[in-house]
Amino acid sequence: MAFRYPGGKKYTGSRRQHTSPSPPLFGNRGMTLEQDLNDTNQYYRSTGRAVIHKKPTPVQIVDVDYPKRSAAKITEAYFKQPSTTDYNGIYRGRYIDFEAKETRNKTSFPFGNIHAHQMEHMSEVLRHEGIAFLIIRFTLLEETYLYDAARFIEWYFEQKERKSIPLPDIRENGHMIPLKYSPRIDYLDIIDRIYFS
Amino acid sequence: MAFRYPGGKKYTGSRRQHTSPSPPLFGNRGMTLEQDLNDTNQYYRSTGRAVIHKKPTPVQIVDVDYPKRSAAKITEAYFKQPSTTDYNGIYRGRYIDFEAKETRNKTSFPFGNIHAHQMEHMSEVLRHEGIAFLIIRFTLLEETYLYDAARFIEWYFEQKERKSIPLPDIRENGHMIPLKYSPRIDYLDIIDRIYFS
Repeated sequence: MAFRYPGGKKYTGSRRQHTSPSPPLFGNRGMTLEQDLNDTNQYYRSTGRAVIHKKPTPVQIVDVDYPKRSAAKITEAYFKQPSTTDYNGIYRGRYIDFEAKETRNKTSFPFGNIHAHQMEHMSEVLRHEGIAFLIIRFTLLEETYLYDAARFIEWYFEQKERKSIPLPDIRENGHMIPLKYSPRIDYLDIIDRIYFS
Repeated sequence: MAFRYPGGKKYTGSRRQHTSPSPPLFGNRGMTLEQDLNDTNQYYRSTGRAVIHKKPTPVQIVDVDYPKRSAAKITEAYFKQPSTTDYNGIYRGRYIDFEAKETRNKTSFPFGNIHAHQMEHMSEVLRHEGIAFLIIRFTLLEETYLYDAARFIEWYFEQKERKSIPLPDIRENGHMIPLKYSPRIDYLDIIDRIYFS
């Protein structure tokens, strides 16, 4: 099922090549959450702390050219709605699963950012004793939070009249992730605290 | 890094849409290993046994068209080499990770089927106490095996003069997965036996 990114939003993911495990020392502003997480996960892998990857963007391939002397070229394809969250892996022997989203909203996190399939996926992960959460960045406020998936799902299903989680709840019940140089967003420190202690 | 599928091999993945959790009752022949695994994983999810997904095919997107009234169309993209294995998820609280390959070879499984990155990834998973293995199908022999990743890596690194694992070793030390109607390839039964007992 192909879909159009809402509001004609341009695709920005997966273009930047990550060739070095060490992020640049300056210039944190302007890095997207995805870039910060890719750097962070690369740091975790290279230091042997965890094995967590972003899944590739799901694409429905319709047509491919096979030129004789060069790489196969996909000439027609469409974005598909993901059936799972974007990130998963293993940490301290546990299965880790999360979705990461940026919002320009300054007062709440709209549920519209997370698809029904992704919600269902996170519930399944929790049923199977995995660790599931969201990483939410309020771009304009420059605040990034780790927010437990169980609580997110509770909000979503029990408070149907609302279409978002208010920022005060995220500030109170989420866990702020400070921006650092390396790793940029050290979310495993928070995982240690809330899921392993 | 874009790459060309060796031997001008055509891309066959991800075209088939899975709309129903129940596989057809007949016609096992001709199903690819990927299709069998997709059906099996869907069966496991729908019965609440495990949450295991195939990762999307990694694609480097170069150009996208945004027509006014229809879905964004990717007009130039290339296949990328995967940095991890294709399948992962959670089962009985444990992280599960595997690669699945078909070969038309009748006497051995050539290492060339598995990229160095994937080998490295499986080692990392094992270091972090995940369960990692390969599912290898000898298409012409109609035999499918689960083969432990640790043993696979040992062969790869310690027996550099060889370029493949001989079939007799796979028959002796792998675990044959019988073909069934539903789920088609019940690999979790073997996982129960070799990793949980």
